[in-house]
This record gives sequence, structure tokens and C-alpha cells, in this order.
Amino acid sequence: MLASLHHNSTQIHVKEHALVFGVHRANGTSYSLSSSRNASTDYQYGSQYLARRIIHSISSISLQPTKSKMKFSMLAIAATALAAGVEGFSAVPSARVSSRFGVRQISSLKMGAATEVDKMAALATAANEARGLAMDSIAAAHSGHMGLPLGCAEIGSVLYGSQMQYNPKDTKWINRDRFILSAGHGSMFLYSWLNLAGFDLPMEELKNFRQHHSMTPGHPEFPNSEHNTPGIECTTGPLGAGVSNAVGFAVSEKMAAARYNTEDHKIFDHHIFALAGDGCFQEGVSAEAAQFAAHEKLDNLIVLYDSNEVTLDKMAEYTQSEDIIKRYQAYGWETFEIDGHDLNVVEETIAAAKASNNGKPKFIKCNTIIGKGMEETEGTNAAHGEAGVPYVDKARANIGLPEEKWFVSEGTRDFFKGVQEKNQKIYDEWQATYTAWKEANPEKATELENAVNDVVPSADAMIKAIPEMGSDAEATRVSGFKVIQEIAKNVPHYISGSADLHGSTRNYINDGGNFGAGFDKTYAGKNLYFGIREHGMGAILNGIAYHGIFKASGSTFAVFVDYMRPTIRVASLAELNRVSYILTHDSIGVGEDGPTHQPVETVSGLRVIPNLDVYRPADAEETVAAYVSSVTRKDGPTALILSRQNLAQNTAMPAMERREGALKGAYVAKKETSDLDLIIIATGSEVQHALKAAADMPGARVVSMPCVEAFERQSDDYKESVLPSTCTKRIAMEAGVTAPWYKYASKVVGVDRFGFSAPGDIVMKELGMSAENLAAEIATMN
Amino acid sequence: MLASLHHNSTQIHVKEHALVFGVHRANGTSYSLSSSRNASTDYQYGSQYLARRIIHSISSISLQPTKSKMKFSMLAIAATALAAGVEGFSAVPSARVSSRFGVRQISSLKMGAATEVDKMAALATAANEARGLAMDSIAAAHSGHMGLPLGCAEIGSVLYGSQMQYNPKDTKWINRDRFILSAGHGSMFLYSWLNLAGFDLPMEELKNFRQHHSMTPGHPEFPNSEHNTPGIECTTGPLGAGVSNAVGFAVSEKMAAARYNTEDHKIFDHHIFALAGDGCFQEGVSAEAAQFAAHEKLDNLIVLYDSNEVTLDKMAEYTQSEDIIKRYQAYGWETFEIDGHDLNVVEETIAAAKASNNGKPKFIKCNTIIGKGMEETEGTNAAHGEAGVPYVDKARANIGLPEEKWFVSEGTRDFFKGVQEKNQKIYDEWQATYTAWKEANPEKATELENAVNDVVPSADAMIKAIPEMGSDAEATRVSGFKVIQEIAKNVPHYISGSADLHGSTRNYINDGGNFGAGFDKTYAGKNLYFGIREHGMGAILNGIAYHGIFKASGSTFAVFVDYMRPTIRVASLAELNRVSYILTHDSIGVGEDGPTHQPVETVSGLRVIPNLDVYRPADAEETVAAYVSSVTRKDGPTALILSRQNLAQNTAMPAMERREGALKGAYVAKKETSDLDLIIIATGSEVQHALKAAADMPGARVVSMPCVEAFERQSDDYKESVLPSTCTKRIAMEAGVTAPWYKYASKVVGVDRFGFSAPGDIVMKELGMSAENLAAEIATMN
Repeated sequence: MLASLHHNSTQIHVKEHALVFGVHRANGTSYSLSSSRNASTDYQYGSQYLARRIIHSISSISLQPTKSKMKFSMLAIAATALAAGVEGFSAVPSARVSSRFGVRQISSLKMGAATEVDKMAALATAANEARGLAMDSIAAAHSGHMGLPLGCAEIGSVLYGSQMQYNPKDTKWINRDRFILSAGHGSMFLYSWLNLAGFDLPMEELKNFRQHHSMTPGHPEFPNSEHNTPGIECTTGPLGAGVSNAVGFAVSEKMAAARYNTEDHKIFDHHIFALAGDGCFQEGVSAEAAQFAAHEKLDNLIVLYDSNEVTLDKMAEYTQSEDIIKRYQAYGWETFEIDGHDLNVVEETIAAAKASNNGKPKFIKCNTIIGKGMEETEGTNAAHGEAGVPYVDKARANIGLPEEKWFVSEGTRDFFKGVQEKNQKIYDEWQATYTAWKEANPEKATELENAVNDVVPSADAMIKAIPEMGSDAEATRVSGFKVIQEIAKNVPHYISGSADLHGSTRNYINDGGNFGAGFDKTYAGKNLYFGIREHGMGAILNGIAYHGIFKASGSTFAVFVDYMRPTIRVASLAELNRVSYILTHDSIGVGEDGPTHQPVETVSGLRVIPNLDVYRPADAEETVAAYVSSVTRKDGPTALILSRQNLAQNTAMPAMERREGALKGAYVAKKETSDLDLIIIATGSEVQHALKAAADMPGARVVSMPCVEAFERQSDDYKESVLPSTCTKRIAMEAGVTAPWYKYASKVVGVDRFGFSAPGDIVMKELGMSAENLAAEIATMN
Repeated sequence: MLASLHHNSTQIHVKEHALVFGVHRANGTSYSLSSSRNASTDYQYGSQYLARRIIHSISSISLQPTKSKMKFSMLAIAATALAAGVEGFSAVPSARVSSRFGVRQISSLKMGAATEVDKMAALATAANEARGLAMDSIAAAHSGHMGLPLGCAEIGSVLYGSQMQYNPKDTKWINRDRFILSAGHGSMFLYSWLNLAGFDLPMEELKNFRQHHSMTPGHPEFPNSEHNTPGIECTTGPLGAGVSNAVGFAVSEKMAAARYNTEDHKIFDHHIFALAGDGCFQEGVSAEAAQFAAHEKLDNLIVLYDSNEVTLDKMAEYTQSEDIIKRYQAYGWETFEIDGHDLNVVEETIAAAKASNNGKPKFIKCNTIIGKGMEETEGTNAAHGEAGVPYVDKARANIGLPEEKWFVSEGTRDFFKGVQEKNQKIYDEWQATYTAWKEANPEKATELENAVNDVVPSADAMIKAIPEMGSDAEATRVSGFKVIQEIAKNVPHYISGSADLHGSTRNYINDGGNFGAGFDKTYAGKNLYFGIREHGMGAILNGIAYHGIFKASGSTFAVFVDYMRPTIRVASLAELNRVSYILTHDSIGVGEDGPTHQPVETVSGLRVIPNLDVYRPADAEETVAAYVSSVTRKDGPTALILSRQNLAQNTAMPAMERREGALKGAYVAKKETSDLDLIIIATGSEVQHALKAAADMPGARVVSMPCVEAFERQSDDYKESVLPSTCTKRIAMEAGVTAPWYKYASKVVGVDRFGFSAPGDIVMKELGMSAENLAAEIATMN
């Protein structure tokens, strides 16, 4: 049980006492070996540098044959010393060491067979250099969050240096492992590792951290029109979101595997990794997504919990006391709890999680010290943000970094070249498999490639291909049910789910099958059952979109879109065109369910979100256009607002014209028959009233404006043709709040109050949503 | 072990087989005794009526001395038969019966000493009559949700008929137990029990269920300007909310007890009950609140889970598979799992939960059959809503109700008179205690009564009492920190919390102490640590407000208010003036954190919510007014939008005038010095730019409009004085989306896009938020 090192043929025994002394010298401070939760690893980070010092300052290391967990870390240091660059070291043939993770045979401590040890040493070195990059960038910006990049350096090192399959030269490789930094404020973690791992993120960008036009914004941003940082899989920052998005990624991977893998060729078999902190697990959205992930048996998902017992305001003890391992077990996850600074344990655990195909998503609680490496702040909430900036130089020295800022050693660059080579081999093998699969399955291949490239018929082609909808009054949610079947036929990668309201929101894809594990469900199914979890649904939809194969819609009652609003905001910001929302039971027309269920502000509340298209169609034909627009739009998400109650069809106008008009956002739904003297603008269920009121007004034009955003994107000429500036007498009508409509009209008939519980037609009439009231309001205008 | 019944001195043995036969006769259908999860109770509901039939149709009942759980329910039927109204019954002296809840001695089956049996029989009868009321009202409206009122009838019976302390004649009694129907769609549950329990909710109102002007809207509504239904403690409907509000009630009760109870007099010792379904526990907000409740050791909270394995869309198996008991244990709750139809067990368990003061909130999983009593739908998702309406008559007959609709028996009315008498006694005793306490603690009593009546100095008095803020540039969040200390002094029942951002949002009440269990916290503390749980925070704030003693504000970054938006909507709808929101880091001024953290649409997104006041103050003096308004407003909540970055003070105008102006929502911040030819409207951080730009424009007037809603409430004269209609050349400026401002201006300088990551001043300038750009835009106007 004694591990000993040979230095130039001289046996060196390094005693525990001496080792502690060595650390004292390096850090200039005193650690208690036994009292710190993570004491075992205080000696591991920076171990390469420490090892060099140890070797030159002390004469012997001996591993005490006790049961202490210290044994393992000391052995790791010995091993690191061995691999630290001084040639000629050797060790006794093997040693058994115990750690929290169990007993482990270390047989690599052999002269000339030190690959594993080399790797661990390289990972340790890289971890510290990543710490340095984070500190340097945050110090330069005087802004940012050091806690996570320092506290999770070993995790990053294992992920990017050993356990993830990726190809920095093909960042869109469809079978790459995905990594999501749910704790997005720790963005320097991501930028550092992407740089080290060989992604095209030059050091110059790290030096410009958080500056305008840099590729390194404050929080990671999925490639969009502002940023195109390679290797960023997901826009994160709002807590709880990323780890919930990850569930969507896992859904998409399972679905892709079920649809496209064959017995002969497995083209999808990657994993989804997410790294999240206390905040992410306090947020309820992660709980919703975690329930869903376990229920659907998404065992391709590996969530790493950076458990550092600190939140921004205080030590986490102020706000949390749950047994989170037990909680995740209750959901149905496979759980692990490890020392997040012990490279060997981190690696073993992630490898074990990847290998476990037991139908359970994986939850790895990594106990870490926030801000590890900076003694002035580590382990406290002061480490979370940029408070450590004044201590950066000292911390860099303590972990053995040279004075040069943004330092990366040749050894680390070499190591990652090796990682790239290893990953390139996996990648090349996969390409061969893909080529063979494509040859054997040409139709599937076309479908998949169309999905990946989001090839969709043009909007014009689709509105022409979809049969006319008929003249009977019909709820637009019912029209939607017909349309979504056509959409599904035209767009094979379109899928749809509901927050327990398929029966009401009517977005079920017939013959699409049900997604998921168990019962009548299959991972190839196109209909998702999200449960009564709107926020989780929104996050999962985003994850599906980020994953880049399918395009997904999700449904709930319009009024409950507030639950998922944070995810809609991010979808809009990230320009996710693969997401849409089916929001039915719009307006006070909902009736008896009363004001808690009657959206009055909801539609306009969505309209203020930049880059979100909000469609509120007036009849079945406009519903066709709205759905078509939602799947053909290229630069952002779309919300469809559909009625519970029947709406009249504007049969006076040809179906195709209504579709074309609605695609433009607004159009003349009834042209004036004499000189234009009034424009009535209306949307959704109010267009029927506008048409009725205008029937007796020859000078009145009715403009249906189902989508304000699409209209605003039209040419000035088109806009002028619909809303001639010469006609200033304009009234708008919508069964919702009035404020946003004053941009287009001088008078607005709307509902600036909550509704009430009564049959829908009564509520509508009482609150003025009728042709009669509109006519009366018009009569009062000058 | 044999229970036997005597009928007119003739001993009757009813065999298990015969009993089954009897049930068959009554229901006309065949039940399998052993296969149904709740088989044991299929025979208990309606037992009075069944018993009558059994007695007349079969000759003997014998309780088989097996270990089957059936024993208990059969004995219950026998007991019910005994108490069913036929005189002359008797039973063997006692019997031991076993149920899921354990072995129980039934000694009350004695002739002439049948109080307990009488009570259980009465509760069973009441449960069925409540079922009848729900069916009749929902059938009349052809709208509503039968699943819960039928499935939870026994739970309602035990709560209102046995376990809750309340006084229907004093529905505002401060020490009443609170009941929250989190599954608000089951509103007929609440209306039925309130009627039965003697609240002033006449049967006529139940007959008008869901109709206009009724007291029985589709979902329960907390008394507000539309509804004043006694006994409704909370507006519910959006799932997950009620059970989370309940945590706020529990916070308030603990706080009141800590502040006002004395060693001699305990005036607060009530419990908070919430009844919630699958949907409530799938929603993440309930998870956030549950974590908080356990962490703060709110053992006065009893959550009843109506676990019926059905959601609206499907059997719940489609969307859930977690071990919820284990999950709640992981949070730190005390858990129970019971048969929700077994009156004895429900009663015992609730009593046990009330008696347990172990620091753990209580979670009771009640296994129920949704829609129980209507065989065509019960146990399936068809039972959830109104699908059962066609089967109502048959179901009523099956559970032994007469043909008369909305039937309540004399027996039930008598029983509840008894309940009222019992509760009156408790109430009278409490009043005596209160009187004694008040005499002994006159200052505390004044404070409490002021709190209950929300007595607050007038806004005018408060703005005069608060010292002037000074002339240095200052972030309004920093100004807010000064103001909140003054608010806390003026309003002792004001408390404040943060979603882990006290240090950033600056709403910590100095010397207020920290609320909660453990560490340096006490239930009397005024500062709440909600954790990174904005949605939970919003729900808890509402709960505190509903509870009716304290008034609470909660803080987060403005951009994250989306997480809690559903709770703000309900606060506005319920007209909760005891709630306010401190939302800091407004606008793109946030800077480096980038677009995920920069609200551009958030402020206007809040403004569309009816009855929410949104204040975005321009300087420290306006911040005073905003805070004062938030605590003096009487009919709804207020959101305060505060800046991260420093803002100039409008020192050209006296502090008090700025305060008075801001209280009115908008005011002239700089008057034109020649003929008025331009109005510049601005809010918050843009007012400083407007003042600067206008400095060289003699005809320009600057209107600061910190609160659009407050301004809209002013007289037409005042509005005209601020914004003369003669001046149509108007420009508005706000660092946010422009659409809402066209109501007041023909041109708007704003930010109709997401921001970007860079230092705040750079983002501001790049996106046109400067005096220079404003002047340039003005120059282009006609």
C-alpha cells in the first residue's frame, strides 16, 4: 500500500506532513486537511505546478495506508508529479486507492506506461489554465462571474478534454455531444474551454469579453444575427432555463434516433450534457422539465449540478435545505454524488453515466468550492461575481500560472491536439457510417437532410396546396386542427405537443403517434404530452429547436402563456424559427371560466416581445396563413392566437386572397365602395364585427391585421396601400387592451379591464365587442 | 370480530355477498370488490341511502374476520345503517377494524352512544349532498368541472364539517383556518361546502353558477370590486398558484404569531389548508413554494393532494410517474398517504397533521376517484369537466339523492348547525383571549389592528415626512434603498423580500431582521429570502396579501419578472393592494450582462396588465413617490422599475413638487419658456436626456410620466394641463419598445429590439438613448 516515486533512480518518499508543507509553500496559507468538505482535492488542482515545487522542496512522499480519503488525492498528486515533466520518474507497480466513489485500482503509475496519468495531469493543468483565462477576462472587463469557471474547472476539463465527442472543425455535426451551460452567467467557463478545445474562438475574443462586437457576450448566445460564436449550443442566462432546454435536446436526440437509426447503422447516439447551479434547481421550470425527462426515460441526458452551497445573496443555507439527490430519485433519475474537483472521479462518473442505458436521465451532484483557486473569496458568495478581481494576480500565482495573462501552455495545446485527433477519428468513423446509411436509406436521408436544413415548401406553395376551408362558422382552433394536419404532411420534421390540452387546443397530429416511453408511445411519435407544465414545455420546445433537426409547436390556453413567457423571450432573442406556440381560447370569448382564464392583455403582452410574430387570425383562411407563416418563417418564433368560439368566415373575399393578405400581416378585408372616409382595423374575432358594421358604410374600409409584426416588415408602398395616410379617421377594434393600437388608429374599441364569468357571448356583448357597439363608437367620431 | 345489527329486535346478519348484492341493486352496475384501488370505499359514499336499501332487501350483514381492508368499510356501512334514521338499531359492543391507516377500535357502535357514528354518517350524507349540489349547478350551467367536487366530497366534508375552525358569521376573523382551493376549476366544491357550512352564499347563487352577476363565478374569486363571495380566501384557477399562495398564508400566520402572540395569550394559532390536484404539482411554481415552505419550517401548512391519476387530456400516466411522496420528503415535508374517500381516515389524518408541530409542512396524498359517484365517467379524464352532465340524474339516484335538485336534507342542515355551535364556542373563547391580550398589550393591539385594516399614512403625509434625497446622481435602486427604510418606519406591517438579489435590488429593510427558521432568522423578521424562485415569490407575496395582515414587496431584476408574471396578473385581478414589486436593473442600461438581462419589452409588458400600476421613476424624488404610492394604493398592486445605473436629479424643480407630480403619474418636469411648441414625454432614465435636449428649446415642455396608469386616473383637467391637446407635436422617449407610446405622441424614440452585451453607457448611446439623438429626432419632426 505504499506508493513511492523514483527520481533519477533515487527513491523519494514524500510524507503526508511534507506534502502539506509543500502546499503551504505554494499557497502561502494553511489548509486543514480534515475539516474542509473538499479537503481531498485541495491538493489536486494546480497539481502539476505544486508537484514541481514539491519535488524540488521536499524529499519524500509516502502514502499512509489508512482508510482516509486523503490517500487518493495524495496518490493523484504523486501521479501528477510523475507526469509533471521531470523525466525518469517511476512508481511502484500499482496501488489500490479509495475515494468517495469507491475503491479503484491505479495501475498506470508505471514507468513508461503513464498515459492515463499523463492525461490526468494534462487535465489538471488545463483546468488551472482555464481558471486563469476566466480570471484574466473578467478582470479585464471588470465585469462577469468568476465563481463557476473557477469552481467547475475540473468538470470542464473532463468534458472537453476527455468525455465529450465533438469536432471543432464541424461545429454543426449532427451527432456531436451537446453541452449546455445552464448557469449562463459563468460564460467564461464556456469561452475558455471552447478556446482550449480548438474551436474558432480566438484568444482576442476572450480578451474582449463582454465588449461590443465581441464573440464573447456576457451570457452565452446561440448563433444569431448578432453573434456567431462556434460551440455555443444554447442561449442561457435566465436561471433554470438551460437545464430545461437540455431536456428538449434529449427529446430531439431520442426522436432522431428512433426515426433514422436502423439496425445496420446507428447515426444518432450522442449525449446531452448540462451544467447547472443552485439557482437552476431552485427555479421551478427545471422541476417541470426534470419530471418530464424521467417520465419519458431520456437516459441520453446527463445533468451536472455545480453544488457549491452558495447563491448570489448568501450562502445557500439561507434558502435551501432539501435533499436534492432524493428529489431527483423521486422523479426517476439515476443519481450520483461526487467530489467535483477530483478529476478521476469526475471522469469515472461521467463515463459511467454515458454507459448507463437504463432509461433514467442522469443527475450528478458535483460538490465544488465556488471560485476555487482564489483564497480570498472561494467558498463564499463573494466568489460568485467579479468581487475577486483585486485578487486575481495573487490567485494566478497561487495556482502556479506565470505572469503572462491569458496563458495557455504548450503542453495544454498539445494535449488538446491529441483530443482533437481522437475525436476526429470518431467523427471520421461516423461519417463512414452516415455515408453507408445514406446509401441504404435514400428516402430517410433526404428527409433528415431536409430536416437539418429546415427545408420547407415556400409559404406561397403551401397556401396554394392546402384545400379551401369552407364557409361555415368555425372556431379558429378547430380550423387549426385541419390546418395542422396539412402542415404535418408538408413538413415531415414538424412535431407538436400540448401542456395537457390537446383536446381543447386541437393541435394533435393525426396518425403522428405519441412521443415517449411506455404505453402507446414511441420516440418516433410526433405528438408530445408535456403535462401541465407550460414553462417546461416552452423550455423543451427551445431545446428541440436548438438541437437543429425538428421544428416544434406547443399548445396551451392563451392566458397561460404567461407561465412560459421567459422561454418565448429567449426563443425570440435566439431567433429560433423552429418554435411556435398554439394559444387557444383567446379573449373574453372564453366565457364561463371567468377572468382567470380570459386573456385581455395577453396578446398585446406578447406583441411587445421583439422578434416574435403574433398571429390572431379572423377566420379559417387566415388560420391557414398563420400556420404556414409559423413554419416558413426563418428568423424567429411565431405565436398563433386562436379562438375557442365559432367565428364567421369572410366569404365575400376569395380564400386565397385572404391567405395571401394574412401572410402580409394585414390586408384590406373589405374595400370601400365610395371615397374612403374611414378605416376600421380589427383582428381575430372582431373582424366579423367590423365587416358587419361596415356593411352599411360605403366609405368604410375594413383592414384585417392578424399579425402586426409581419405587416411592419412590408414595404412602405404596401403599407400605404392598406392604410393610406390620407385617411386619418381610423378606429381599431380588438377584444383586448387598447394601448398598442393607437399607433394605427385615433380611437380604439377594446377591453381595458379583466373580464368576468358568464357565457362567452354575454361577456363579449357586455364589454362592447359587437358590430352594434362598433357602429355606435364610429358614430361619435369626427 | 362479528358486527351485527338488530332491527326491531330481530338480529340481522348482512353477509359480504349480500352487501355486494345490495350495492348492485342500488347502482345497477357491477363492481369488482378487489380490483379497484378504492374498492373499500365504493360502499361508503351514499351509505345512508344504501343502508336503507340494504336493510330492506337483505337479511343479514356479517363482517368477515379476514385481514381484508373491506372489513372497515363494511363496518362503516353497518355503522351508517345504525345511524341512518331507523330507530331501534343496535350493534355488538365494539369491533376492531383495520384500514390502510392502521387498526382502529370502533367502540361507538353502541345503542344510544353513537355520537361518533352519527357524525361520520352525517359527514357521509353531506358529502353526497355536496356531490348533488355540484352536479346540479354544473348541469344547469352546462359548464364547469365535476371531477373534483365529486372526487373530493369526503375531504370537503371532513374539512368543513369537522376539522376547520371558522365562523361563517365573521368571515374576516383573523384566527380562522384558511382554506384554498388550488384546483380552482373545481369551484363548485367550494360553493357547495360554503353553502352547507352556513356561509352567506344562498342556494340561489349556486343555481346561477357561472352566470353574470352571480356570486359563483367559474373560478373562485377573492372578494374584489366584481365579487364578494364570503369564505373565498384566494382567487384560483391558474394551476399551481393556490397551493403556492398557501405558503404565503403560512408565512403570514407564522409572522403574526411571532409578532403578536405572548406567553400569556396566543391569538394566532390557525392552520392553512390547500386542496390541489395533479396539475398543481406538475407546475413548477408549486415546487418552488414547497422548497421554501420546508426550508422555513412552515408546519402550519397542510396540503391535501387530490391524487386521482387523471389530468384533463389523459390518464395522468401519460405525463407523470414520479414518487411524489418521496419528493415532498426530499423537500423536508411530513407526508401521509391515505384513501381520500374514507371519512375516518381523512379525519384522523388531518387531525394528526394539525397536531404535529415538528417544523415540517404537511403533505397528505389523498387517493381518490375523480368524479366519484357517476359511474359513466368516474376514474377517467371524462370526469374532469362537464362531460358527465347527461348522466347527472342517474348519478343522483345512484347515490341516493331524491329527485329534488339542489337537495340538502334537514339532517345535514342540523348537523352543520351543530358544527357552527362548536366553532362559535371556539370563536367566543378566542374573542375572550383577544380582549385580554389587547388589554395587556395595547401598543401591539394598535399595530395589529392597523395592519389588519391596512391603516397607512396618507400619500401626502408620507411624501412630506420623508427627508429630501439630495442632488447627487444616483441609481434609483440606491434611492430606493433609502426610501424603503422610511416606508418601513411609516408602515410597520410592511415587509420585503428578494429572490436572492437583496444585494443588487437594494430592498433590504435595515434592522428588520430576517424572516424564517434557523440561522439568524426569526418569524418576526421583515426581510424574506425567497431563493432564486421568482414565481414562487410572486405566489407567496399574493398569499401574504390574501391573508390580510401584512403588506409585502418582493424584488428581482426587472427582466426576470416574466417568471412571476402569472402571479402579478392574479394580484391585479384580485385587487391586492398589499403587494408590490421592486424590479431593478431596468432597460439596456444593465450593460455587460447582455440581452438576456436587459429588459426592453418588460416594462410595457407589465403596463398592459389591467389594474397594475407601473412606476418607472426618473430620479430619487420620483422614487419616493413611487414607493409611497405602492403602499398607499387601495385597489391593486404596484411595480417599481428602478435603474441599475446612476441617474441625474432634476434639481431645477423642488423635491416636493417632483414627488407630488410623480404621485399623479405624470407632471411637467420642465415648463416651456416661450409659446409651447413641443412636448417631450419621457420616463425613468430618459427624463434626464429630455431635460438636457429641451434646455436649448424655449418652446419645449418636458413631461415626466413615471406611471401611465396613475396619470390616466387623473381628472381630464389635470391631464389637459399636462398634455394640452392644442400641442400635437409630441415625442416620447423610453429605453424600451415604442408601441405603447403612440397613444401620447406621434413620434417615439425607443428600443424596438433586444440589446447587446457591452458597458451600459455604450449600449445606451449605440441604441440612441442620449440627449443628442433625441434632439436629432426632434429636428426631423414637422
